[in-house]
Amino acid sequence: MKNSMGSSVILTVFGESHGSGIGAILDGMAPGIEVDEDFIRFQLSLRRPVGDISTPRKEQDNFVIESGVFNGKTTGTPICIVIPNENTRSADYGELRAKARPGHADYTAYCKYHGFEDYRGGGHFSGRITSGIVAAGAIAVSALKKKNIYIGTHIKKLAAACDRDFGDYSTDIIKLSKAEFAVLDGDAGEKMKSGILNAKSDGDSVGGVLETAVTGLPAGVGEPWFDGVENILSRALFAVPAVKGVEFGGGFALSDMTGSEANDAFNTADGVITTLTNNNGGINGGITNGMPLIFRCAVKPTPTIHKPQQTVDFIKNENVTLTAGGRHDPCIVHRARVVIDSITAIALCDLLCGRFGTDWLGE
Amino acid sequence: MKNSMGSSVILTVFGESHGSGIGAILDGMAPGIEVDEDFIRFQLSLRRPVGDISTPRKEQDNFVIESGVFNGKTTGTPICIVIPNENTRSADYGELRAKARPGHADYTAYCKYHGFEDYRGGGHFSGRITSGIVAAGAIAVSALKKKNIYIGTHIKKLAAACDRDFGDYSTDIIKLSKAEFAVLDGDAGEKMKSGILNAKSDGDSVGGVLETAVTGLPAGVGEPWFDGVENILSRALFAVPAVKGVEFGGGFALSDMTGSEANDAFNTADGVITTLTNNNGGINGGITNGMPLIFRCAVKPTPTIHKPQQTVDFIKNENVTLTAGGRHDPCIVHRARVVIDSITAIALCDLLCGRFGTDWLGE
Amino acid sequence: MKNSMGSSVILTVFGESHGSGIGAILDGMAPGIEVDEDFIRFQLSLRRPVGDISTPRKEQDNFVIESGVFNGKTTGTPICIVIPNENTRSADYGELRAKARPGHADYTAYCKYHGFEDYRGGGHFSGRITSGIVAAGAIAVSALKKKNIYIGTHIKKLAAACDRDFGDYSTDIIKLSKAEFAVLDGDAGEKMKSGILNAKSDGDSVGGVLETAVTGLPAGVGEPWFDGVENILSRALFAVPAVKGVEFGGGFALSDMTGSEANDAFNTADGVITTLTNNNGGINGGITNGMPLIFRCAVKPTPTIHKPQQTVDFIKNENVTLTAGGRHDPCIVHRARVVIDSITAIALCDLLCGRFGTDWLGE
Amino acid sequence: MKNSMGSSVILTVFGESHGSGIGAILDGMAPGIEVDEDFIRFQLSLRRPVGDISTPRKEQDNFVIESGVFNGKTTGTPICIVIPNENTRSADYGELRAKARPGHADYTAYCKYHGFEDYRGGGHFSGRITSGIVAAGAIAVSALKKKNIYIGTHIKKLAAACDRDFGDYSTDIIKLSKAEFAVLDGDAGEKMKSGILNAKSDGDSVGGVLETAVTGLPAGVGEPWFDGVENILSRALFAVPAVKGVEFGGGFALSDMTGSEANDAFNTADGVITTLTNNNGGINGGITNGMPLIFRCAVKPTPTIHKPQQTVDFIKNENVTLTAGGRHDPCIVHRARVVIDSITAIALCDLLCGRFGTDWLGE
Repeated sequence: MKNSMGSSVILTVFGESHGSGIGAILDGMAPGIEVDEDFIRFQLSLRRPVGDISTPRKEQDNFVIESGVFNGKTTGTPICIVIPNENTRSADYGELRAKARPGHADYTAYCKYHGFEDYRGGGHFSGRITSGIVAAGAIAVSALKKKNIYIGTHIKKLAAACDRDFGDYSTDIIKLSKAEFAVLDGDAGEKMKSGILNAKSDGDSVGGVLETAVTGLPAGVGEPWFDGVENILSRALFAVPAVKGVEFGGGFALSDMTGSEANDAFNTADGVITTLTNNNGGINGGITNGMPLIFRCAVKPTPTIHKPQQTVDFIKNENVTLTAGGRHDPCIVHRARVVIDSITAIALCDLLCGRFGTDWLGE
Repeated sequence: MKNSMGSSVILTVFGESHGSGIGAILDGMAPGIEVDEDFIRFQLSLRRPVGDISTPRKEQDNFVIESGVFNGKTTGTPICIVIPNENTRSADYGELRAKARPGHADYTAYCKYHGFEDYRGGGHFSGRITSGIVAAGAIAVSALKKKNIYIGTHIKKLAAACDRDFGDYSTDIIKLSKAEFAVLDGDAGEKMKSGILNAKSDGDSVGGVLETAVTGLPAGVGEPWFDGVENILSRALFAVPAVKGVEFGGGFALSDMTGSEANDAFNTADGVITTLTNNNGGINGGITNGMPLIFRCAVKPTPTIHKPQQTVDFIKNENVTLTAGGRHDPCIVHRARVVIDSITAIALCDLLCGRFGTDWLGE
Repeated sequence: MKNSMGSSVILTVFGESHGSGIGAILDGMAPGIEVDEDFIRFQLSLRRPVGDISTPRKEQDNFVIESGVFNGKTTGTPICIVIPNENTRSADYGELRAKARPGHADYTAYCKYHGFEDYRGGGHFSGRITSGIVAAGAIAVSALKKKNIYIGTHIKKLAAACDRDFGDYSTDIIKLSKAEFAVLDGDAGEKMKSGILNAKSDGDSVGGVLETAVTGLPAGVGEPWFDGVENILSRALFAVPAVKGVEFGGGFALSDMTGSEANDAFNTADGVITTLTNNNGGINGGITNGMPLIFRCAVKPTPTIHKPQQTVDFIKNENVTLTAGGRHDPCIVHRARVVIDSITAIALCDLLCGRFGTDWLGE
Repeated sequence: MKNSMGSSVILTVFGESHGSGIGAILDGMAPGIEVDEDFIRFQLSLRRPVGDISTPRKEQDNFVIESGVFNGKTTGTPICIVIPNENTRSADYGELRAKARPGHADYTAYCKYHGFEDYRGGGHFSGRITSGIVAAGAIAVSALKKKNIYIGTHIKKLAAACDRDFGDYSTDIIKLSKAEFAVLDGDAGEKMKSGILNAKSDGDSVGGVLETAVTGLPAGVGEPWFDGVENILSRALFAVPAVKGVEFGGGFALSDMTGSEANDAFNTADGVITTLTNNNGGINGGITNGMPLIFRCAVKPTPTIHKPQQTVDFIKNENVTLTAGGRHDPCIVHRARVVIDSITAIALCDLLCGRFGTDWLGE
């Protein structure tokens, strides 16, 4: 499948940072889903760098929907969205071409593609490719809302500051959907921003943890073993650049608990079965149990930093020092959250449409 | 794909705990790979319950290779391995049938399969299905060894005891491959076993963290975005029952570091490019960089415990108390490690054969 | 995918003619579908050699349903069916091992598997593998009947004798479903049998054309371009050994018509839209239009014959004469029809479940 | 997979006839393959309508390679090609919108997409989508040539005129690769053109048979059962609009032969194994045997004709007469051949790269 994921709803990404354009194809979306270009633009704005805490580079993210939308609604055929690359000053990469940025894919891309890769600005491994995911994901997010399925991600931890836990999911998710910097506790958010600015002034960078909640998923979604919710989502989430860990529900903390602590007692009230705790994050045996789906992603600090670093020139095969110039993000955690929302929405559409059929999402 | 994973090398699992048999099909293995039935038996023995720290239930795991092996070697066609279920006293499940075990898939299976699921002993969600994965995985493990690719998993943490870190990978992996209880530090191992026995005497259970290292992978393996090593492996690892978190390299700890701490400096010596640290766990941009592949899985405590638990009877839709009788594992971490080795081997064969072709693994 | 087909309902075949067993896994069938083992046996009987017109070799086709069926119904999990190989006297193949039977896969299997293939009796390329398809297909055929979708195949042409065209589909399909030798016109059938016996007495073989009709498919099933009904079915049908051509509706005859002759005029009566002719075989643009689905498969004459043939010993790389001893079918057309019904049923289940969801088939 | 095919090399198509643009993504092509934009343009020119025998409509087919090509060579990442739609006068379709053209996908698209389809000019079912296949296919055709694999298609039959059989494959394929009207016998070609013009003057249309030869394929390519060469190619070929039959080697004619006539005797000379006839079209058991791959596609007459036809208005559900105005092709056989070459090339790249690995095609 290579640059695609999904079997009922399929996302394919393409593009290089400094090529003609980047984008995505979303295939398998039911016919009749409303496509709100303003909402796509809004979601893209959440991914864009903003203010002091991001790179000063400007990206316009003007997108073209080449296909699959007619009279403002999905047709049921592949939706191809192209985002042209602008102002891609492909300066002389001469010297930098083979200096592997530590933590980046420069060297592994070279190993895989034998030097034929478009190395400019990270090429196909650039975070910029996620714009296509966000644009396509916006359609999936909208479609799920109509089914009362809501997705919200907040910055759980960044630079030693922790956001509060989710409280009332509905309220919190709505709040997050509008927030430029996705925290539930404003004070924690200020500390995080300070942490980012500190790293920036050090010529360094910081990472963090993003926590996501999904409400409204019916029980019984997901396939056993390899196509469970955890399997499908983790595969999708590790596609988000810099994600190095994914955990569901209690996740790694469960490994310190006993069974009697970790097990989620079932309870029925007013005919509705729920669990009293949610250590399993809404999933048992890979299948939804009707509780909110909860997971967290560990985001490593942005690899490109201003501090001098030891590395190799992999063509000359010699040790060199790299001092990255240019404009870089001291943190991408706050920008990554909309990517996580987007790819989660697409992966869930895939699972739901496999379960309920091709047309369900548009009904 | 449902109960299958892979595109070049494909694993399919089937079976229910109390049906006729369980097993797996491994398709896409190159022709000419030696199949050592003794090694399959040995690997299965590592998964079997042993001593005081496991369930006293006996499983024989006598397997039948129905196809794909001829004169002791793979033919290149699908290898179907069936493990008959024995002594499956399908006692009267009457009362227990609808009492959802907290933390288990009983209720979600009911939601998904509308009551038609074979509920006896966990059915298709039983850990027993992993026997098929281990049997098939043994062939993959052997094939990779011939290519100098070695996989080893140890119990990093269990019941508050921590094993030492990997030291010399080659030595440690060989040690682990023979160990019944997979730790590198014997003292830590004893503490873990005590922890398991304590939980057992409490009618409770414990979880833990498994850490895996893979050596010998060439640089440049993995596809960008959705078929990277992290994507493919996480999808596979979350299939192992009770795994609720997966992290690569530094994983969640990276979220507390700065870029200058987390980045792995590249270094070249004697013509070989390595990194001085391995916080990325051998992977950049989803693609191997030639360093050891490192990941950890969080294993939750076994859900089935003897302590009384609140739950629901999901057919009557009423609250009930569940007191599980029978014989159960107070811990499955030590048994799960060979499952992780096995499924890792299969997933890596898939990635490698996609890269190097159908025949490579047998050459 | 290798030995699998399908994305919602997935068939995987395994086995070698003289190995331990052969069989199939059918994954993705909805829970709650009745599994009638007598019907499976009956369908298998239609594939078995009978009377003078087939090989005198006896095959028992005793099958074991290893998984996926509980209390006589599908559980929704993978259905693994194993058919043990019996009486597989693996006589000394020494001399014959490398004498490529013209028209057979002996030589190509050797090229692909480098000599590691299980060459006994055709190995993985043996027609015997189709028993697994028929057993699995019986479940699909039954499930479709409950949805009022009926499949029938007759021998349209064999040894210069032609069967009459389909008349009333319902009556004809029922008639065919019970017939040992699937013709609509008994006289034509007798001529065909004579043709087979003539070929047999010549030490030769004959082929023929099978024509299939499917009624009851709703309009709007199939995906455009690569997953249309024609695409999915042709991929499945060419898996049936000896099939060398597939055509839908008018097929090759359409190439001699004008548009005004070939176009199927639409007509509405009593609120139901049909076409006045059915040259498109029920499919426009890869998607069903509600008319009966019609297609034909060209079956080449059985390659194994008694007449001496020139060939090569591909290990010694020298020209030799092959005189096949043993018992062989002078014709497999009449045995192949149930394989075509079966694989058609499975492929249609895949298309329908993709469209209507995981559970639809069991509702 | 919906609008995609392939597993190692994957083609995805998108677009509607009157939307913003159409195109294709080709993923999985090895890095380092030369991309000759002039050759893409030339191949597109073979698909374009020309002279009296085609529609007078002009299509420019200016394409944009959005990604996957750098410095004139493939990078190994997805190649996205967009062909903008120009001069798409989306006149008032009001009255025509729901008048189903007999033989077309208008009605089935409506059934599948519930009226949300972009119905203008055939929408996603328009032959125009094949431009994307041809553009992507040109890269595959070029890559195969470097591996000495050549593909050629001629019009075997059209309007009762028959082209001569392939003679010397190399010479003939080169001849065809340059021909605007792909016949080997110029006189036959003139008769075919007359046949087209006759149909045109009648307001009618004609179909035909295309025959394809592929030379240079090594023996041993293809997977048994569902991923054999015949399976993969037939799935691809039935995607070409108007193809209603596909046969390999002798195809349907084999059903009239005896085994001793149909079997291809193997022969070895100078160390090379060939067959003396090629009734199996280069394939045994789904796997190449080293002989030229031969197949034929039946192309039905273009459904859109000027003659009045009975049909229904499927929204009003009433019988109506359709008299198609506008400009239409009286025949598309000569335009379809480059589509068949293109999709064949892509499907073969998929099979070859699965067998020989990701990089093989670029080596």
